[in-house]
Amino acid sequence: MIGSFNIVAKDGATGARAGELVTAHGVVRTPAFMPVGTAASVKGIAPWELERLAPEMVLANTYHLLLRPGVDVIEGLGGLHRFMGWSGPILTDSGGYQVFSLAERRRYDEDGVTFRSHVDGSELRLTPEGCVEAQRRLGVDVAMALDVCQALPAVRAELEGAVAMTSSWAARCRTVLVPGDPTMLFGIVQGGLDLDLRRRSAEELAAIGFEGYALGGFSVGEPPEAMWEAVARVAPLLPAERPRYLMGVGTPRDIVRSVSAGCDLFDCVIPTRNARNGLLHTSRGPIVLKNARWRTSDEPPDPACDCPTCRRCSLAYLRHLYLAREAAVVVLATVHNLHFYLSLMRTVRWAIMTGRFVGLLADVQATEATEG
Amino acid sequence: MIGSFNIVAKDGATGARAGELVTAHGVVRTPAFMPVGTAASVKGIAPWELERLAPEMVLANTYHLLLRPGVDVIEGLGGLHRFMGWSGPILTDSGGYQVFSLAERRRYDEDGVTFRSHVDGSELRLTPEGCVEAQRRLGVDVAMALDVCQALPAVRAELEGAVAMTSSWAARCRTVLVPGDPTMLFGIVQGGLDLDLRRRSAEELAAIGFEGYALGGFSVGEPPEAMWEAVARVAPLLPAERPRYLMGVGTPRDIVRSVSAGCDLFDCVIPTRNARNGLLHTSRGPIVLKNARWRTSDEPPDPACDCPTCRRCSLAYLRHLYLAREAAVVVLATVHNLHFYLSLMRTVRWAIMTGRFVGLLADVQATEATEG
Repeated sequence: MIGSFNIVAKDGATGARAGELVTAHGVVRTPAFMPVGTAASVKGIAPWELERLAPEMVLANTYHLLLRPGVDVIEGLGGLHRFMGWSGPILTDSGGYQVFSLAERRRYDEDGVTFRSHVDGSELRLTPEGCVEAQRRLGVDVAMALDVCQALPAVRAELEGAVAMTSSWAARCRTVLVPGDPTMLFGIVQGGLDLDLRRRSAEELAAIGFEGYALGGFSVGEPPEAMWEAVARVAPLLPAERPRYLMGVGTPRDIVRSVSAGCDLFDCVIPTRNARNGLLHTSRGPIVLKNARWRTSDEPPDPACDCPTCRRCSLAYLRHLYLAREAAVVVLATVHNLHFYLSLMRTVRWAIMTGRFVGLLADVQATEATEG
Repeated sequence: MIGSFNIVAKDGATGARAGELVTAHGVVRTPAFMPVGTAASVKGIAPWELERLAPEMVLANTYHLLLRPGVDVIEGLGGLHRFMGWSGPILTDSGGYQVFSLAERRRYDEDGVTFRSHVDGSELRLTPEGCVEAQRRLGVDVAMALDVCQALPAVRAELEGAVAMTSSWAARCRTVLVPGDPTMLFGIVQGGLDLDLRRRSAEELAAIGFEGYALGGFSVGEPPEAMWEAVARVAPLLPAERPRYLMGVGTPRDIVRSVSAGCDLFDCVIPTRNARNGLLHTSRGPIVLKNARWRTSDEPPDPACDCPTCRRCSLAYLRHLYLAREAAVVVLATVHNLHFYLSLMRTVRWAIMTGRFVGLLADVQATEATEG
């Protein structure tokens, strides 16, 4: 049944768990990493390439799609799945974070937020109801509630205000997307690095009731250790029987650490953005394509990798394409990096199911620490 | 046997013919269009995408590969086929045209040409022998002789000088790559729009003897009608029993016209460059993606096209990606445009083999004339 979440295995020593989230477009096996397709496209790769990578779920951004091409256009063409040529599950971010990031170009009030489009400067308005209605009309599988982010550092009163408004807006979002709708609704827990406020936020959202709960406001510049510590304390505050989504995180090490804290879903631009910058994630650690040491290397980027890039291309070829600014290197590096992330998640899940997660956690941390 | 060229069908009313050129990496069925992979990559697409498009032969550029990553690197990695992950036939342009295009940065003498690299400004030298030796070391299937281009308009003495030096250099190229070598050698006929000089050039090259003959110096800014007329007169001057390659041409209409003049091989950046600029070639004529008329169009770019882009993507989606500057649109448009060109060539070949070429020629001209 759409919205059901079955935990199929738990790690004995950590909070890690393997689950199955049922959506209208298939089952999402967790822990899962969602490639980022901000504007209805995972940057640089064709829809059939994405399909071949077979992610469990893909992320798109309500904010960007509202601005361009507009919800009317996508709805009129049969919804976001058909529009972007991806028939698997889709989650959309609500745009709360994107609007927050506009800084001088947005103004919050109790009812919503008014902002100027980064595309054409026109004034637009987002309310909790309008935001969730837009996601419903896009036809996505998981919609995110509209939240209120707080810039850090902040005084406690500011953080409390953001948490209170996020709860109030979350309740209004829930009136539009009720349980049983083909589009699920996730609430977003705020509260910065303040554990009491995070607890309050989680409790208020749980009282409303959502199909899943997200942690917002992490990975916004704090040191990895501070994030890991906070996530380890906050994740258990979220309802255990529902999926937990750590937004915008992170490196392979961040993700595996956060899985151990009990998080189930992740998204991040790191693999795709790094690909565009010529950085490959591998089982031996990161590889910087422009380095002269690869000039004559006949090795694939990762001898342990099954992706089409590693099966076809030498490091010397990839380095050449990168230095010659050939656009194909973006495709090749993106395919590899996403394959690496998705393969890591499959390995993590299987380790949880077979009682080997703690060993894997140690391995991933050791690799990144020595090679990063 | 490598180098053999069998003409399997001739059109009764025109000079069009269908052939098979045997190379060390497979048979090239002609008439054939070669996608341009200047720097060992067809711009924007992965090697497996190129393989799926299944061109008969791919073009790369000696000049660009000499400068970066260097012939030593590619030879050391097992040759150009392995380097770029393409196991079908490859033809390399000699670099004659690229060096000529450097204008103030190059200086010709009897023995060769000295020029400054556009990559790092270093001074380099290309001789006929060195140029062909480089192509042999790249391991390509067809090498082009180093020719001398002449800027137009030119006085007759200048054109005569370029033709004479081209013949002299062609003879020196032939000493390096002798008949029977796995790498074939094609000579390049020059002479501008002067029919007598073109005849002289063709006769001098035929006397040396090459596995194929190319027409250089066309499609350099002259009106299409002038080119068509000249090609129609010059192509028959090239030995009929060997493949004729019209370099750098052209639009679909140019190509089909030139097939009727007896040309067998073509290369051009039009389909790939137009793809990057959001222009699609279709059976209904060109489509400009940014046009507002596609804003809500659920149609594929070409309902008659079998390419993966047309099977998956609406014009509305492609327009959105183009306006949002999403890199994936380059992949999608490049795959479509190359598929269109390659499919056209298959149609042309089959029409020649089944006595329907004249009708096809009329159709292609009518489509482009009304929609272009």
